[in-house]
Amino acid sequence: MNPSTIADAHARIAPYIHRTPLLSSSILNDFLGHEIIFKVEGLQKIGAFKIRGALNTLLKLKEEGNLPQEVVAFSSGNHAQAVALASKILGINSTIVLPSFTSPIKQQATASYGARIINTATRREAEEKTAEIKAQGAYFIHPFDNDDVIAGQGTSCFEALQDGANPDAIFATCGGGGWISGTFLAKELLAPKVAVFAGEPLQANDAARSYKSGEIFKFNDSPPTIADGARAPEISERTFKYLKQLNGFYEIDEDQIIYWTQWLMNLLKVVVEPTSAVSMGAAFEWLKTQKTKQRVLVMLSGGNIAPETYRAIWEKNYLDVVPKDLDIDFVAISNRS
Amino acid sequence: MNPSTIADAHARIAPYIHRTPLLSSSILNDFLGHEIIFKVEGLQKIGAFKIRGALNTLLKLKEEGNLPQEVVAFSSGNHAQAVALASKILGINSTIVLPSFTSPIKQQATASYGARIINTATRREAEEKTAEIKAQGAYFIHPFDNDDVIAGQGTSCFEALQDGANPDAIFATCGGGGWISGTFLAKELLAPKVAVFAGEPLQANDAARSYKSGEIFKFNDSPPTIADGARAPEISERTFKYLKQLNGFYEIDEDQIIYWTQWLMNLLKVVVEPTSAVSMGAAFEWLKTQKTKQRVLVMLSGGNIAPETYRAIWEKNYLDVVPKDLDIDFVAISNRS
Repeated sequence: MNPSTIADAHARIAPYIHRTPLLSSSILNDFLGHEIIFKVEGLQKIGAFKIRGALNTLLKLKEEGNLPQEVVAFSSGNHAQAVALASKILGINSTIVLPSFTSPIKQQATASYGARIINTATRREAEEKTAEIKAQGAYFIHPFDNDDVIAGQGTSCFEALQDGANPDAIFATCGGGGWISGTFLAKELLAPKVAVFAGEPLQANDAARSYKSGEIFKFNDSPPTIADGARAPEISERTFKYLKQLNGFYEIDEDQIIYWTQWLMNLLKVVVEPTSAVSMGAAFEWLKTQKTKQRVLVMLSGGNIAPETYRAIWEKNYLDVVPKDLDIDFVAISNRS
Repeated sequence: MNPSTIADAHARIAPYIHRTPLLSSSILNDFLGHEIIFKVEGLQKIGAFKIRGALNTLLKLKEEGNLPQEVVAFSSGNHAQAVALASKILGINSTIVLPSFTSPIKQQATASYGARIINTATRREAEEKTAEIKAQGAYFIHPFDNDDVIAGQGTSCFEALQDGANPDAIFATCGGGGWISGTFLAKELLAPKVAVFAGEPLQANDAARSYKSGEIFKFNDSPPTIADGARAPEISERTFKYLKQLNGFYEIDEDQIIYWTQWLMNLLKVVVEPTSAVSMGAAFEWLKTQKTKQRVLVMLSGGNIAPETYRAIWEKNYLDVVPKDLDIDFVAISNRS
């Protein structure tokens, strides 16, 4: 895709979404000796950036005169709510197929936007059911393997760069790779010399392995991590094309993810889902290697946390160790030169 | 105090603070059939409205040529951080006396603003130590029994009314009564016909009892409630004068406080300390008695939550019961006519 696609997507969806704020914490900046700018997508509609991609997809179909009467999506997370709300905004029907282990609160939120919910026992059954509904004529919105979704997700970084983030490097979390691909395209458009790094949970490091080996690595099932927005078992050829062009990957372990989830909520006073904290973990590891003061943009994906996840986050107390004293072992893939 | 004092205070402190946002949740409005506007003081400096009162006090002293070299305060909560940061802004020294049971994260935050911290074993020892430092010449900033503190706290409601909140009724939490007194004065200035109600934890209901009986009721020690910003054992004659003029008090039990803490974080995606949820509990109880659609302003005090409090908040899951189905028993003092 031409990077200008991101500007087109932003013009398309801007009337329907919030322009989310950039926040920073002087205490955190003092701790780290660097300047961290956060793009806070938790304050976006549905509480996550995902509404951007779903809306862009449907609005573009409408522009082209191809708006479907019904859409279908398969997701246990923020993409479900995104497709439900985007469909409501466009006045069309949506069906969301959810594995029954999906948190009741996420199911409820999806239903509250007027979507029809279908529960299935397993992830595999959910995929089959989705295919069936698609075969009956519904338009399928994939969470990341879709150019219009990628372009929509890129609008959050586009806004941040327009709003004066002016970073030396940009960090975002990689799940299926849609958000980081859009982020990469947005910076190609507005700040082509700036580095972009992905953070990925160490326990769900399929994209990092793929980046390192040059071949797409696939988990057999959704890997276990508290960062539930980054559990896609594999990226796609479409997103891999952009991922290959990133400046590096950082793999963040579960302790680090929880550490930054706690600290970012404590410092920023906004709800930060663990998936968001992965990008901060990556930024922290990169900043440790820098000899001069840097200014970085850290993309925070959203603020949707189920009660059981809140309990897991606060089971231990990580606020005892301030960020300047943090020295957690980590596994990082060195930048490929 | 003349209500115009609030406008003077706002002009004084505005350059140093954030103009915090008004947020609302369409999902919550749909659930309740009313419109709720939230003033989000968690996004204020130090994560709570308390910076307003401390700053107004010191800036006014400076205007009058009486800026002290040192200030002292006694607090286990947000007032400690407020006095520490206000002193830092004014370039003077601060000493904060804290009982040693104060959460380490709150002590650390206070220290991070450059305050000298003195720990004492008990609340009583802390009060004695504070008196001692005051006797040596430090200026003592009381958390609520001070006109300049009250005027500063009133600036959050002043902003909300200026920014188009346009409510039928206003709700704020009552601890020592400084915030609700300032809130009352702000509405007297800008919207004199609007009703103001206080929420107070049922387990710390000294102000509600005082309101009902006409005489100040005092607990022997800080009463136990998860709403730690409302644990003052008594109000003062100064705040009682304004409290008597309120339209009513609602006493909110611990389950209700936790219920609204969970729900407001879930819907607004900002960190909402339990003390803030008390005002939402009050608004909910008032709205249940209304026969026509109302628009209310709910003041959210702050977003400072210690790890152990997070654990207590998420021990049970209250998100299973949506607000439209909520019918918790509650104890309310009827409005005095």
